Amino acid sequence: MSSKYKLLKEECYEANMELNALGLVIYTFGNVSAVDRENAVFGIKPSGIPYETLKPEDIVIMDYDNNVVEGNMRPSSDTKTHSYLYKNWENIGGVAHTHAMYSVSWAQAQRDIPIFGTTHADHLTQDIPCAPPMADELIEGNYEHNTGIQILDCFKERSLDYNEVEMVLIGNHGPFAWGKNAAKAVYNTKVLETVAQMAYLTLQINPQATRLKDSLIKKHYERKHGKNAYYGQ
Amino acid sequence: MSSKYKLLKEECYEANMELNALGLVIYTFGNVSAVDRENAVFGIKPSGIPYETLKPEDIVIMDYDNNVVEGNMRPSSDTKTHSYLYKNWENIGGVAHTHAMYSVSWAQAQRDIPIFGTTHADHLTQDIPCAPPMADELIEGNYEHNTGIQILDCFKERSLDYNEVEMVLIGNHGPFAWGKNAAKAVYNTKVLETVAQMAYLTLQINPQATRLKDSLIKKHYERKHGKNAYYGQ
Amino acid sequence: MSSKYKLLKEECYEANMELNALGLVIYTFGNVSAVDRENAVFGIKPSGIPYETLKPEDIVIMDYDNNVVEGNMRPSSDTKTHSYLYKNWENIGGVAHTHAMYSVSWAQAQRDIPIFGTTHADHLTQDIPCAPPMADELIEGNYEHNTGIQILDCFKERSLDYNEVEMVLIGNHGPFAWGKNAAKAVYNTKVLETVAQMAYLTLQINPQATRLKDSLIKKHYERKHGKNAYYGQ
Amino acid sequence: MSSKYKLLKEECYEANMELNALGLVIYTFGNVSAVDRENAVFGIKPSGIPYETLKPEDIVIMDYDNNVVEGNMRPSSDTKTHSYLYKNWENIGGVAHTHAMYSVSWAQAQRDIPIFGTTHADHLTQDIPCAPPMADELIEGNYEHNTGIQILDCFKERSLDYNEVEMVLIGNHGPFAWGKNAAKAVYNTKVLETVAQMAYLTLQINPQATRLKDSLIKKHYERKHGKNAYYGQ
Repeated sequence: MSSKYKLLKEECYEANMELNALGLVIYTFGNVSAVDRENAVFGIKPSGIPYETLKPEDIVIMDYDNNVVEGNMRPSSDTKTHSYLYKNWENIGGVAHTHAMYSVSWAQAQRDIPIFGTTHADHLTQDIPCAPPMADELIEGNYEHNTGIQILDCFKERSLDYNEVEMVLIGNHGPFAWGKNAAKAVYNTKVLETVAQMAYLTLQINPQATRLKDSLIKKHYERKHGKNAYYGQ
Repeated sequence: MSSKYKLLKEECYEANMELNALGLVIYTFGNVSAVDRENAVFGIKPSGIPYETLKPEDIVIMDYDNNVVEGNMRPSSDTKTHSYLYKNWENIGGVAHTHAMYSVSWAQAQRDIPIFGTTHADHLTQDIPCAPPMADELIEGNYEHNTGIQILDCFKERSLDYNEVEMVLIGNHGPFAWGKNAAKAVYNTKVLETVAQMAYLTLQINPQATRLKDSLIKKHYERKHGKNAYYGQ
Repeated sequence: MSSKYKLLKEECYEANMELNALGLVIYTFGNVSAVDRENAVFGIKPSGIPYETLKPEDIVIMDYDNNVVEGNMRPSSDTKTHSYLYKNWENIGGVAHTHAMYSVSWAQAQRDIPIFGTTHADHLTQDIPCAPPMADELIEGNYEHNTGIQILDCFKERSLDYNEVEMVLIGNHGPFAWGKNAAKAVYNTKVLETVAQMAYLTLQINPQATRLKDSLIKKHYERKHGKNAYYGQ
Repeated sequence: MSSKYKLLKEECYEANMELNALGLVIYTFGNVSAVDRENAVFGIKPSGIPYETLKPEDIVIMDYDNNVVEGNMRPSSDTKTHSYLYKNWENIGGVAHTHAMYSVSWAQAQRDIPIFGTTHADHLTQDIPCAPPMADELIEGNYEHNTGIQILDCFKERSLDYNEVEMVLIGNHGPFAWGKNAAKAVYNTKVLETVAQMAYLTLQINPQATRLKDSLIKKHYERKHGKNAYYGQ
């Protein structure tokens, strides 16, 4: 099957399969999308299809206004959240949503994940925000679209930069993560899940545990992401 | 070995093996049955046979009054609970029972599992009920049959609909789950185990965590199961 | 290599490998022995040999007085505990010792594991005993032999029957389990580890959780082990 | 590719891969080095290279003053901590650093890991120390070098011997472990992670759990490491 979106579908497919391989989803409890900025479309997992049977050609190609551009299947029920993020955050290339265990548990607890250590600071300098549940009328309305609004509102209120904080918890629901491409969105989902488990255990061992001090946050973030970064090749 | 129940045995066998593959059982701590409504019989795992050596032809075919219709082995010791559910709940096609870790722990704690998030609401709108332990004379009597009665009494008292709430905890014992077929009963067992772990972690992170609000429960349940459902293909 | 203890070595080897396959040990943190009552000898894992390189012919054959009967290697450092149990408990055919996670954690907490549910009662009717640490002079003396005495003292004090209660925790140390043969000792080690995790989680969910009531203990134990047992084939 | 450090690179490579196989790292969250005392160099994992693609020839050879002796890649960002340890502790042959779950959680809790049982005492007689976070000016300065100083200061203050206590937690960061060679450093990392989880669970089961008594600490440590050790072959 020839398609001008073949590479996009493959990128999206690989990222979805990686989500599964990393133990971040059971059944169909997750979805990843990948964007093609030049053509202003994104590929996303079809709704309710098990990872075991998913194929690259099943990926649905959508525009930012939620029209199907190519594909025979219905896209993920969370598609409108993905499109809202692509439309508003021009630098992101991929989005992932899961119901991963520890991330969901913090979301259900309606708690931000405090920055307790360098594993967290290697990736971002802020607590991982937990957006509050939406007002009833927004839930009853265009729910998935409004979930996108909810994320942006949360970032605006807290003055967070989506280029640095590449993850969020939706209260009572679960995590969304993004990045420069779909693989990075999956990576951030795994990092969030790991940091969520570490923060949970930290508070079990010491309920008075304190946040990492500013000098260490800065050191670890900068050595990986700063102007003079010396991590990696 | 030819048998008019060949397909039923295979369905039942596959579901039992899936229980094992999903990490929901160790040794012989679980059993799944599958019903054939036309012939008013069900297939069930033989008692005490390890999953490693189980074969489709080992599945025992029973009628609803607990008579062996076909098979050389003794059926699961929990057979009478299965038959009681099939006899009284005409819409179900499969039943699964396990001693899965987190489900059993809530059962041993004698606590309902509160609906804390959308992972739960994607599947049912109610807390997952924990039926209280039986009166002594019922335990000493026809125990497994009475376990079936206990489940139905619990659903009656709380006005629950078995078509929507497809799972229950038996206090101090463990979970039973059911569904339109055996595979769905196993799926529900896995969902219950996942939701049980999430609820446990949620309360560890925030002992004052509150139940999901009604609008979100409704939204998530309806988008998967309502008249205008838009989840899946 | 021909040996009159070839079968015994193989039984012992298989049981040790199963311990590893079940995730009950890391590195060399465990050992299983198997007895040959007719010849009054037992085979045991050599000390400090990784499971990855263990071979059936490495198993050391010992008499009950801790003399090597056959074998070139030094037996497990816990050998004298095994021999003491074989010498005093004539019905047992295998013994297993590990540092499995949840069993050790209860031992380190110096707490008996309360009988909270039917998973426990399917195997024994009593709380799983945690023997207190030994007096200093016994530790400094013939330590592993005295660990055997400590186990028997614990059973005597509490009037426990080793034919029913096939497992014990040594305070601050870890679990020992036994059974009619080495495979059953390994099985009991896995059951203990599972029940230990369930009891831990139960108390986390409900710190006021109560022990299983007598009628349920009796029902579940008897249906598997009583005169009129109807579990298994 | 011929190199006088071929064997050193292979030892280092194998130890890094073992870290991954033991589940002690995700992505690139860890590094192991191995020293060649005769040539006063050590091999270390290159920075930011995934374990899936790491090859023996990628290992970077460094001298103790952090000059690259051989290799085209940038060494681990933690290299200066490794070199500081090699320079000051002449008996060690390998160093490992990870962000393993339970070790990091204790580090984030800024708590020493109490010696609760024999699993711990089989390896060391002391609580596992958690070094406090550094002063801000040290963090802003030569951070990784200063992490080495921080470890040595912690050992000096507490009069610990690095030949016996082969592991440490850096507050808010994570574990470092070492040993006579790289494989032993990885082994100690796994032992630390296991003991960290056991201690966490012990305190959850019994918040008043007490440290192991001296006679048992001595007995277990001596039988494995003392003059008259009788553990192993």
